[in-house]
Amino acid sequence: MKLYDGGRVPNARRVRIFLAEKGISVPMIPVDLGKKEHKSDDFTARNPLQRVPVLELDDGTVITESVAICRYFEELHPQPPLFGTGAVGKALVEMWNRRAEFELYLAVQAAFRHLHPGMAGYEVPQVSEWGEVNKGRAVEAMRLFDRQLASNRFVAGAEFSIADITAFVSVDFLKAARLSMPDDMPNLARWRDEVAARPSATA
Amino acid sequence: MKLYDGGRVPNARRVRIFLAEKGISVPMIPVDLGKKEHKSDDFTARNPLQRVPVLELDDGTVITESVAICRYFEELHPQPPLFGTGAVGKALVEMWNRRAEFELYLAVQAAFRHLHPGMAGYEVPQVSEWGEVNKGRAVEAMRLFDRQLASNRFVAGAEFSIADITAFVSVDFLKAARLSMPDDMPNLARWRDEVAARPSATA
Repeated sequence: MKLYDGGRVPNARRVRIFLAEKGISVPMIPVDLGKKEHKSDDFTARNPLQRVPVLELDDGTVITESVAICRYFEELHPQPPLFGTGAVGKALVEMWNRRAEFELYLAVQAAFRHLHPGMAGYEVPQVSEWGEVNKGRAVEAMRLFDRQLASNRFVAGAEFSIADITAFVSVDFLKAARLSMPDDMPNLARWRDEVAARPSATA
Repeated sequence: MKLYDGGRVPNARRVRIFLAEKGISVPMIPVDLGKKEHKSDDFTARNPLQRVPVLELDDGTVITESVAICRYFEELHPQPPLFGTGAVGKALVEMWNRRAEFELYLAVQAAFRHLHPGMAGYEVPQVSEWGEVNKGRAVEAMRLFDRQLASNRFVAGAEFSIADITAFVSVDFLKAARLSMPDDMPNLARWRDEVAARPSATA
């Protein structure tokens, strides 16, 4: 198997952090987005959406979408569980991972893609008004997570999960989007520092 | 347990179709979005994001996010499997369900919410330029699914799954967004008719 990796982009990083938490090593093939290698015919044949990361199995099966790749490895290597345990635990991880994606990650991503001059050739067209709306949404989303983290060590409860990985790469993505964590979110800051200190955070 | 249901909105419908496919009956509490009942203090205490559906368990645990609710029921009632089977099967359902959500559903939803006059009080602010961009994205997404369905009976392969439910409610949502399926997508049309004929489609 091989993982087509995209370097610093948040979705590629999510998968690398997930693998590091599991202690799994997968052969990586770098995809240089700056050189638009993800737009090549070769890459497009694997993922018509032209996005990283992409996992290719030995039989040629292609799995795209970061969370789908993570779920594949969760099935192969259940320990430590990063998608929750038990019906309620799995549902709560799913819920918080989705809140991290739809409320936080998408907002930060939209602020970045629609406002950053460097993204003009990638996000076509850039809709600056939409980027501005999402700046506010990113802050609202951080407030939701700050409240949740007031009474929970991790995003989905007592255990570290994929929801923490999604939220962490989103918060780490703030700077690229020219946003920052507001000062009145001590729980979110405490959690960010704790996750940043895990060895997986450098993956 | 009780399910706070939102009537005709696509996310509420996804969960009802999923339950119908499983043959599960859950007590429903209607939430009238026209009367903004989802903005009430009572509802907001359950879901600060003020969105339906919401599942409340007998011990007071609240599960939001349609797919998280579905996953809870998949764990309790594994048959028929709607999230795939085996590591590869589960990953492919996850992948196609996410493509259905991020490429198709979000595009149709954005076209509806940012362009429909009736949504002016719900989507604040409406960004019409963003709505227009998403009309084109919805068509691109349909083309991706049309190609996939040329060689697969269902969205994620040979078996019906939650990816079909997500894609189906998205296609059914086109009309509200003043969009329609292009005529040159015979595979998507074939699949839509097949899914629409299942008893669950009326749920």
